[in-house]
Amino acid sequence: MNDIITTILNHRSIRNFEDKPLTDEQIKAIVLSAQAASTSSYIQAYSIIGVKDQEKKQKLAELAGNQDYVEKNGHFFVFCADLYRHSIIGKEEQKVVNPSIESTEKFMVGLIDASLAAQNAAIAAESLGLGICYIGGIRNNLEEVKKLLKTPDRVIPLFGLAVGYPAKMTEQKPRLSFEHIYHENEYEQDMAIYLQQLREYDELISNYYEQRTGGKRKDRWTAQMAQMLEKQSRMYMKEFIQKNKLDLR
Amino acid sequence: MNDIITTILNHRSIRNFEDKPLTDEQIKAIVLSAQAASTSSYIQAYSIIGVKDQEKKQKLAELAGNQDYVEKNGHFFVFCADLYRHSIIGKEEQKVVNPSIESTEKFMVGLIDASLAAQNAAIAAESLGLGICYIGGIRNNLEEVKKLLKTPDRVIPLFGLAVGYPAKMTEQKPRLSFEHIYHENEYEQDMAIYLQQLREYDELISNYYEQRTGGKRKDRWTAQMAQMLEKQSRMYMKEFIQKNKLDLR
Repeated sequence: MNDIITTILNHRSIRNFEDKPLTDEQIKAIVLSAQAASTSSYIQAYSIIGVKDQEKKQKLAELAGNQDYVEKNGHFFVFCADLYRHSIIGKEEQKVVNPSIESTEKFMVGLIDASLAAQNAAIAAESLGLGICYIGGIRNNLEEVKKLLKTPDRVIPLFGLAVGYPAKMTEQKPRLSFEHIYHENEYEQDMAIYLQQLREYDELISNYYEQRTGGKRKDRWTAQMAQMLEKQSRMYMKEFIQKNKLDLR
Repeated sequence: MNDIITTILNHRSIRNFEDKPLTDEQIKAIVLSAQAASTSSYIQAYSIIGVKDQEKKQKLAELAGNQDYVEKNGHFFVFCADLYRHSIIGKEEQKVVNPSIESTEKFMVGLIDASLAAQNAAIAAESLGLGICYIGGIRNNLEEVKKLLKTPDRVIPLFGLAVGYPAKMTEQKPRLSFEHIYHENEYEQDMAIYLQQLREYDELISNYYEQRTGGKRKDRWTAQMAQMLEKQSRMYMKEFIQKNKLDLR
């Protein structure tokens, strides 16, 4: 164990920030950290949009389902998969690159590149004593987000990252067991073991909620997940991505 | 600046490892670090397969395009997007979850979750003095990788992470400029600025190669990218993903 692993293990999402903006130096350290992440074949298929404009932040908060920590934080980053750059390069270099850019493979590369960069940004921010919260809610209405951030085709805003000085700490939610997430040599083939691990996790989670709420709440994780997934959400996504000329072939 | 940001900024991919396996404690610290990453709505839509079996590692190295550091390292992790777990939960809870699981949105969630976890694993490993290399090459032939790791439907192996004691350090490759990756309030609208940034980066990169190779090589990044993207690679991916019952709707 060391300070870095301690920082990583100490992560919790912060949803309450002090009214204190990040300095330009902090923003730069966070973005350079993001850029230091690995990138598939040096492709760097992502962009980061930092939103300072208060009106835009307010609009983003609405679009993300009225989450006020999208508006009230030290800085708000939007991480985007970005193959637009490469499409422009194709034109400049007079090479036919768009069939490749429009493949599911390259869509995946954009998502992976952007996410690796984002997690570096998150860890860098936390190492500076700041708190972070990922905001998947911006995917509620990407058409509007796209207009707001003026992103061209082949750029997909994936998630926000709210960063700031924590005003209220939150508790950590226990994760699935190490044994359930981590498989050795092959994926777990024994369904009895697999289901038993889920049952044990359910017990852990339901005790966790019970203790936190003084007995008022006692959800199981699997019930939460089934309930959440029963509702179909953001089903417009395929059409949106393809309209933006990615994941087409 | 601090030790964590220094570690992050000091990242380079290592492709030459000592013949010394990671201990179980190291593996556990790395996986627990991965699990501490944020996850969309607590969904934890990923799994990690650690490959210890030397025959499997050899086979994976072949499949990844004869990269011998896939075989020769301290440990080899495979990060997978995993919605299989949630499909099983749907059955157990008698809820109709598959339409949701089969959406492009949930495919994206799986990719993002797995990637955030992986980058935590990478940083944790580097903090322990280990080196890492992401292996996108496993996507060359996912049908075979899937058989080897016995992953069920709705589990997509995304990339490997080779970890070990560095035997040979590599140089860092300069990234796109901060100004080109980071946009304020909206995506860069001025094409002249955008192209100028790419030209300046090309100059930086071509000087970098020239210095490293004693003048033998002088590639521009944009030329590299256009050449790479002109070749269509892994175009089977859409069919493979959909055969595995993800990104269908």
